Order: sequence, then structure tokens, then C-alpha cells
Amino acid sequence: MRVADLGENNLIQRLSSLTKHAGRSVDFGNSDPLLLGPGDDAAVYRADAGIFLATTDTAVEGVHFTRDSICWQDLGWKVMACNLSDIAAMGGVPLHALVTLGLPMDTEINDIDELYAGMIESSNAYLFTIAGGDVVHSNNFFISIALIGHSNGTLLKRSEAEVGDLLAVTGHLGSSSAGLRILNQRKDQFASDSQTSLHTQRVPGFATITLKARSFLINAHRRPTPRLSDGHTLLKHGVKAAMDISDGLLLDLTKMMTSSGTMARIESWKVPIHPHTLRTFPADALMMSLTGGEDYHLLFSASPQVMEQTLVNIPQATIIGTVVDGPPGHVSVVDKQNKEFSLDYLGWEHFRS
Amino acid sequence: MRVADLGENNLIQRLSSLTKHAGRSVDFGNSDPLLLGPGDDAAVYRADAGIFLATTDTAVEGVHFTRDSICWQDLGWKVMACNLSDIAAMGGVPLHALVTLGLPMDTEINDIDELYAGMIESSNAYLFTIAGGDVVHSNNFFISIALIGHSNGTLLKRSEAEVGDLLAVTGHLGSSSAGLRILNQRKDQFASDSQTSLHTQRVPGFATITLKARSFLINAHRRPTPRLSDGHTLLKHGVKAAMDISDGLLLDLTKMMTSSGTMARIESWKVPIHPHTLRTFPADALMMSLTGGEDYHLLFSASPQVMEQTLVNIPQATIIGTVVDGPPGHVSVVDKQNKEFSLDYLGWEHFRS
Repeated sequence: MRVADLGENNLIQRLSSLTKHAGRSVDFGNSDPLLLGPGDDAAVYRADAGIFLATTDTAVEGVHFTRDSICWQDLGWKVMACNLSDIAAMGGVPLHALVTLGLPMDTEINDIDELYAGMIESSNAYLFTIAGGDVVHSNNFFISIALIGHSNGTLLKRSEAEVGDLLAVTGHLGSSSAGLRILNQRKDQFASDSQTSLHTQRVPGFATITLKARSFLINAHRRPTPRLSDGHTLLKHGVKAAMDISDGLLLDLTKMMTSSGTMARIESWKVPIHPHTLRTFPADALMMSLTGGEDYHLLFSASPQVMEQTLVNIPQATIIGTVVDGPPGHVSVVDKQNKEFSLDYLGWEHFRS
Repeated sequence: MRVADLGENNLIQRLSSLTKHAGRSVDFGNSDPLLLGPGDDAAVYRADAGIFLATTDTAVEGVHFTRDSICWQDLGWKVMACNLSDIAAMGGVPLHALVTLGLPMDTEINDIDELYAGMIESSNAYLFTIAGGDVVHSNNFFISIALIGHSNGTLLKRSEAEVGDLLAVTGHLGSSSAGLRILNQRKDQFASDSQTSLHTQRVPGFATITLKARSFLINAHRRPTPRLSDGHTLLKHGVKAAMDISDGLLLDLTKMMTSSGTMARIESWKVPIHPHTLRTFPADALMMSLTGGEDYHLLFSASPQVMEQTLVNIPQATIIGTVVDGPPGHVSVVDKQNKEFSLDYLGWEHFRS
């Protein structure tokens, strides 16, 4: 069945009933903060006085994803993870999501159900509700999410990095980028297969990936983990400056340094890269870790004392450099001999604009 | 200059500075509820304890509008008005908007500036802030807005209509639909002009529209007024059931009756139609008022006593029918002889799904 067969109102009713209990594994009873979900002109929720967060993130078919590279359920999970990652990067907790779907009339209802399965999985994992949204016709598919969150009053900001701070990330970078590369190579391989033999290995190195590495990296691309609890740990130990890495370390670090009026010095050999990435793409792993997006780890900055305490509590986090005095927004990457990398070489220019 | 020339980050910075003071004509000083606008991972705002509203509405080029029928500034105003109308229909006040743009790379920056001029005009008129958003690439243009609002605790709901209530609307219906018809006729005329003479009047009746009627109706289509103060007046006088008319009276009334488990009986001659609509489209005016969307007036239901008090305070509002016992969601339209209209005849079927 397709959208055109079901009709917009029936589709909205279907989605309302799908999401009714999502993110409510706790029995709120009369204290359910969501007073009115989908079905009226607006979602209605109750909140205590405090600080609230609002973010939005969108995925457009053909621009941010293709049906070759991700299934509908993973897409639902991933778009929600992008939004949750923004809330994590402020140190908040998610409360309510609004979901807007732009749908071609021939979209299969089954596909939309799977997309929602991924979002509902996310809402049950991170305990927020899907409070409403909108369904509109569009020639190409898109999904846009607005997410409201709560903060306990202290915030992780991009503008709070200070000269003398250490810079760290909450985990391996480049895994998502490596996963996407594998998916694209597979596609190229399929394309060439159709013209040559099924067993031709036209893409160098592809045959040497173990199944385990392959599934780990593809999973990193399709099912990123929003670092909500890491965000809370950062706040708890006094970290003030953080953001999530969605567009790649160098680009996002540039934003943080611009916002803080400082410069960063990254020690390239300290950037954490997963062994699967290193072994699968030995030549490109460093570039992937520096410029590859969508890992959704948190990048943060703190004084050496605060950093020490924090790293004890986030064991997988790693120091990668320092905040130094210099041109605001400048990022310098050096090797073990303290020689500066040419960032053009690293593909940096492609990501600048 | 185009999006591709300016780059995404520069565009986001441009939009941030454009919207910085929007909706803040009151000098909030230290009590500004928006603690952090665009530029970090999420917008941050302070709120007292209470009831909050969240809604979202999207316009896709080629589906919801064309560049022939609306200019960018009016589009910015109108998309914001759709969202504000949802807040009005709950009896709330708007607080903060997140704006997502889906942009082809060849979009002119001037056009985006004008789009924002329309949204900023709206934010200054209705005192909400543009707190953040997202800019993404897309093959066809779309704009999606999420709007957060506040309620004083009592709400206007779709589900509260009761048998015996009177039904009313806050103003003329069908004006937007008539304006769109004029715009489409003009397009047809241009299309035929290019093949015949510039002075040919191919579309019957088009020549007889006065300039004043023309501009009134086109304006109704392009620059709808969200009925925020009417929403507050409804609440103040004890109205409990309301919604905004975005998809047309019959379709929206069907939703309200379904939600309330009641049936509606509309007296066709009471549906308020502006004289400009009646004179310009004498044969179609009734159909336009019953099924034409985008007038963004409020539809409400109340007991005769409550209705009487309310109408004194919203003089332009008009009673159009009653809530009766019957199949939930059913809407019956009768003429002065109490003869039921065939809704198929009115083009109703086109709007059902």
C-alpha cells in the first residue's frame, strides 16, 4: 500500500497510534508531561520552570542518504540520533520530538512504518516522546525533526573553550566515514559486476575486509549512538565547552574555536581511530578521522585538572590536543615531529564551505 | 549571489545576524527568555512552570506554493502564519521558532533574505523569537518551521464540541481560495497571451474584477492573519472547542466532529463570504467558502450562552450551524429549505483524503 492509497489523514492517524506509547516505558500516570499528543493543532506538554533546549535536524533523500546505503528503520534511528546528539552536546535530556515527513505519493506505507520503528526504538531507549508533527507531499523524500529538551541549568557551550585547555573526544572518529566508504565501494562493485564477472574484485583492498570489521563500520554509519550520558558526565565534572562532531572533527573544531575566539592545536597521532578503520583503510584512516562526519561523538575542552577527573569517568574519551593563543578559529594539525600537516592534502578544502 | 557561492556556514551566520533582534521590540534586558539563539548545538530558553505548545508546518515548492503565485517575503509571512494559527487555535501565545530551509544550490541569497524579511515581520508583529534552525541541501526548495508556544493553562481543543453547541467562525471563508483562483487564471491568461494577443480576455469574468477586489483576494491568499487575539478572546469567554481552518471548512469540521464524537449541521447561507468573493465568483463562492483552505480563521463550538458573550467580543465572527447527535464526524450542509446539499457536487470528494 502506498501513501496515495491510504490518504494523508489515515496516514496521520496510523502514525499517531504507532507513537502513542513510545518513550513512555515509565508509567507516568497523571503526571505524564505530554498532555496532548498528535491529533490537535499543537502538541501540549507540562513543564516545571527551568532551562529548555530546542534543536532541529533534517535528512533529504539523495543528499544525506540513499536507499542503497541505509534501510528505513536505521534511517529513523539515525535522524533521531542527530537531534539527540545536539541535546547531548548541550548537556541536556530530550523531552519531546515533532516529526515532519515530506513524502512522494508512491511511498510505501511499509517503509514509513519501518522508519517509525527506528524512531520509536530511539524514543524508548532515550525516554522522550514523539509528540506530533506533520505529513506533506514532496517530490523527493525528506524527514525533519524538531526536538525539545531540558537542561539542569548549566550548559555545555561552544564558546567556552579557553587558552590552556586540553581538547578531547568521547570516542573513535572516522568509523562512520569508513562505513560509508564500504557501502559506496559495494555499490561501485555492483555497478562494475554487471558489466564484468561476479567475482571480479575491482576495488583494491575490499576483499580483505573481515565480515566483523565490515559490519562494525557499516553499523557505525547507520546506527550512531547519541552521547547523552557522556554529556551529563562532562557537566558533572565541570566541563563548560563542548559540541557534537557531526560534520567532521576539523570543521566542527573550527566552529568551536571561532565561537571561543581561540585556536586549536591537534596532535594527529592522538586522534582515536578504531582498529577496524585503520586496518581497512590504512592510507585514508587519518583523513577519515579528521574530516569524516556523522560519528556524533562529543568534542570538549577543559582545564587539565577538570580533564583528568572527567577522563576517569569516561574511559573511552581521549585527549587530542590543546587550545592555544592564535588566530580565532584556526586549527593546526601536527605530527610527532611537530611538523604541521597541509590540510589541503587531507581533503580539508572540500569541507570548508 | 547564490547559496553555492556563499557556502552553508556563511549563510547560517547571515541568517543568525538577520534574526538576532527579531521579535524583541520589548527590551527584555536580563530577563530575555531566549538565553542562546542560533550558533550552538541547540537554542536555549528559560521558561516558568506551565503548559507549553509545539507545532510544525512545512511548505514545499511546487506542492504548497509556486514562485508565480507568491513572492519570497509573503511566503515567509505565510508559513509563519500557518504555525501561529495552530498556536492561536489552542489559545496560546507564540514563544520561539526554529526554521529549517531545504535549498537548491542555485537559490539566490537575495531570495532567502526576502523570505527572512517576511518571517521577521511576523516575529515583530506577534513577539516571538527566531531561535535557531537548520539549512540543508535539497533538489527542491522547502521550508519547515517548528514553533513553541505557551498556554495559560486552559486550552481550546478539537475534542470538546458538545451536542447542542452552536458552531461559528471568526471571519470570511473562501477569500484565500478566490485569491489563488485569480492568480491561476492570470497564469492561464499569460500562457494564452503568448500565443494570441496581449489584450485577449480568454478567461470569462476575469475582466470584470475591480483592482480593489483583486488585490484584496490575492492578499488574503498571500498574507493570512493568524487569529491569536481571537483565540484568547474565545478562552476568556469560556469557549472550549476550537481549531483553525487550514484545509477548508468541511474537512476541518469533519476532523473536529470526529474528535468530539459528534455531528455538525451547517446552514449554507450563514457561512460568511466576503462581497469581493461573491461578486468575482458568483457561481463558485459557496464551494470556495466550504472547501477552500488557507483562510486561517478559527472554527469554534460553544453553548448558546457562551456563544452570545463571545460574539459580542469578536464582532466579525458568525454562527454557521449547530452540533447535533449523529454519526461521529459526519457533516451535513443544508440550504434555506432545509434540503441537504450533495457534497460531491461541492467538490468535497477531492478534499476527503
